[in-house]
Amino acid sequence: MNILSETTTADGFREREFTVGEVPGILWAPAAGLGPLVLMGHGGGTGRRSPAMVGRGRLLVAAGFTAVAIDAPAHGDRPRTAVDEQAVPEMQALMAAGEPVGPVVERYNADIARRAVPEWQAVLDVLLEETHGPVGYFGTNLGTAIGVPLLVAEPRISAAVLGLFWPGSLAALAKQITIPIEFGLQWDDEHIPREAGLALFDAFASQEKTLHANAGRHKEFPRFEAASAVRFFERHLV
Amino acid sequence: MNILSETTTADGFREREFTVGEVPGILWAPAAGLGPLVLMGHGGGTGRRSPAMVGRGRLLVAAGFTAVAIDAPAHGDRPRTAVDEQAVPEMQALMAAGEPVGPVVERYNADIARRAVPEWQAVLDVLLEETHGPVGYFGTNLGTAIGVPLLVAEPRISAAVLGLFWPGSLAALAKQITIPIEFGLQWDDEHIPREAGLALFDAFASQEKTLHANAGRHKEFPRFEAASAVRFFERHLV
Repeated sequence: MNILSETTTADGFREREFTVGEVPGILWAPAAGLGPLVLMGHGGGTGRRSPAMVGRGRLLVAAGFTAVAIDAPAHGDRPRTAVDEQAVPEMQALMAAGEPVGPVVERYNADIARRAVPEWQAVLDVLLEETHGPVGYFGTNLGTAIGVPLLVAEPRISAAVLGLFWPGSLAALAKQITIPIEFGLQWDDEHIPREAGLALFDAFASQEKTLHANAGRHKEFPRFEAASAVRFFERHLV
Repeated sequence: MNILSETTTADGFREREFTVGEVPGILWAPAAGLGPLVLMGHGGGTGRRSPAMVGRGRLLVAAGFTAVAIDAPAHGDRPRTAVDEQAVPEMQALMAAGEPVGPVVERYNADIARRAVPEWQAVLDVLLEETHGPVGYFGTNLGTAIGVPLLVAEPRISAAVLGLFWPGSLAALAKQITIPIEFGLQWDDEHIPREAGLALFDAFASQEKTLHANAGRHKEFPRFEAASAVRFFERHLV
């Protein structure tokens, strides 16, 4: 891990900027030592410093966790490839036209996930040189497109909060996952049909899994679900 | 309100036994004053002192609420009518035979609810002589069969946690309900088909409603959902 900066605020919130290989990341931790790790996957079109990552990071640290976010391929400070340059305007055009965006998002995010999974594993290798103990994963949207194959590949992650994605390419992988899952969907999602969200939740083989479905559209995923995720990790990682 | 007894434990947990008319009830409150009220409806075959009521009451009081449970008609210390004497063995026989119990439970619980709703309203009248402010309702199973018509009849209740029931006689009523709702169902419920539980959740007209669906059978409704209900009331009643 190449540490670029590390600061601690007066209220005991530690922030570290780092890179592992070419991947930029950020780590938030309590002032004293690293608590149990929660890896955070950001949504599409954002990055490691998105408002959602900062907000979830603060909640996790307040509960004693160490939260880590990295830029997914083609996100945040990372370069885009020709695949990215083609997919992003295609998704935007479909959404602007009110047409189903699912097939394009699924295909494109699966491509990002193939690149992202080994990156997360490399970051986890480095983090576990410094701390040990249980590891959680928290990511919706693109964070779930990456999270599901990551959970299949990575036995060191023992609980995950996911949601807001289609079942197409993920359901077959979800059937291999048995760790506790909390899964969010929006009951009135204009992009992901209700039955599609329910089908992905149904696919997980986990004995303990909880669906949180909230009234509202895709972008209205409520803030209180982040606090619920923290309590989920308190039940399973502490 | 006829107060039969009132005691306070060393850790500041106040318990009052009372009757309103012929209805026996129990009130749990912090030692100092009454906090916001949460009316608790017990499940079928139990009563105001069931383990679920005691557990939820303790959680609510620890968060500053006043929790009140009353015996539903034909439950707890209350007499059974001929209707009750017929319905209970009928339900038990169907369950023992592994046959669908829904139609009998729905019909019988609707009959109980017709008797229970005015009783809850009389209890609420009396409670609101002593305290004021927002009122919540928390009840699953029979507690939902009573709770849904109670919410339609009773504008003084402003948030409710419900769940574990069929939509048959309740969905039409749920469409008239607009207060915030948290709704629990069991993903592998052997009595209530998944689609039936989802249909009842879907029927509520509330702009804010949350479904918590947990893997597991009917009786495996997780304990952490009681803590979730307390946080729901903290968001809406405090």
